Amino acid sequence: MQHIVILRIGHRPERDKRITTHVGLTARALGAEGMLLASNDKGIKAAIEDVAGRWGGTFYVNNDVNWKKEIRAWKEHGGKVCHLSMYGTNLPDAVEGMQECNKLMVVVGAEKVPSEIYDLADWNVAVGNQPHSEVAAVALTLDRISKDETLAGAFEDAELTIVPTARGKRVIDNTKNTGFDQS
Amino acid sequence: MQHIVILRIGHRPERDKRITTHVGLTARALGAEGMLLASNDKGIKAAIEDVAGRWGGTFYVNNDVNWKKEIRAWKEHGGKVCHLSMYGTNLPDAVEGMQECNKLMVVVGAEKVPSEIYDLADWNVAVGNQPHSEVAAVALTLDRISKDETLAGAFEDAELTIVPTARGKRVIDNTKNTGFDQS
Repeated sequence: MQHIVILRIGHRPERDKRITTHVGLTARALGAEGMLLASNDKGIKAAIEDVAGRWGGTFYVNNDVNWKKEIRAWKEHGGKVCHLSMYGTNLPDAVEGMQECNKLMVVVGAEKVPSEIYDLADWNVAVGNQPHSEVAAVALTLDRISKDETLAGAFEDAELTIVPTARGKRVIDNTKNTGFDQS
Repeated sequence: MQHIVILRIGHRPERDKRITTHVGLTARALGAEGMLLASNDKGIKAAIEDVAGRWGGTFYVNNDVNWKKEIRAWKEHGGKVCHLSMYGTNLPDAVEGMQECNKLMVVVGAEKVPSEIYDLADWNVAVGNQPHSEVAAVALTLDRISKDETLAGAFEDAELTIVPTARGKRVIDNTKNTGFDQS
């Protein structure tokens, strides 16, 4: 099992709240273990961990980390670091190397990142060579390196579980052991 | 060549500006032709078309459309409609059918969508059965149905083009026919 964490840098609490929340939830849904937030925003931590609490699993957010220390510590413990942007090696050309490492840190910035990141990263990866979204970049990268094609991982101790269905919204409330159709 | 448009519903200008912009830019980067915005927000149209102008291609945003009329007109002209959420058929089980249609409308809502959508859609697709992000949902869906693995489509008449490189940011300014390293 590959260990993946997200390092979110450049987050501005007044501006990036929703984008960073989407980055975290996307990372969780696609198998990352947690997100390190290199800014002080307890609201993000609370929002994501609230979702994780209801939907299961052990995803965590570490608030207000020092990004440089986190990258160094990760590498000292044998981890590799991949920095996502619109520059760098094309994603398909980097996938195999990323699949092979046991510990992968995925770094995503907001608008602009310190240029040092480009040197610290083992891979600078372009998720397409077009401007789009760090949420999409995380999603595409985690999906491409995943060896599980299903996109529907199981999360332990979930209060809520969705039952796939062609129409409507079928949800199981595991705390009451009942299913219901959400309106 | 498959024709893909995004229909964005439930957008709240005061709240969803950045998420909807990311949805549009992601759709453009992954090959959609345009985005229909079922709210009045000229800022979104301007922001996305500004990027499209510099980075090439013909991606458009139609502001303030009537979503029901757009879905009906699309279907009358032989198009199929796919609605993305965390409920529905699992994405991998719907990919083949979506690849086979010539015209695909991809509907993504904000927090909550009218229940009618579930009946109007040809496919209700769960992009994972976990809460995450409409940006990620659009990205994963367009990537999974794309038959081009490269993620690096060419955009015509671009002012700016990125040259993939392992370190740094190499950009070509096509208006001056010069390359430069972005700081």
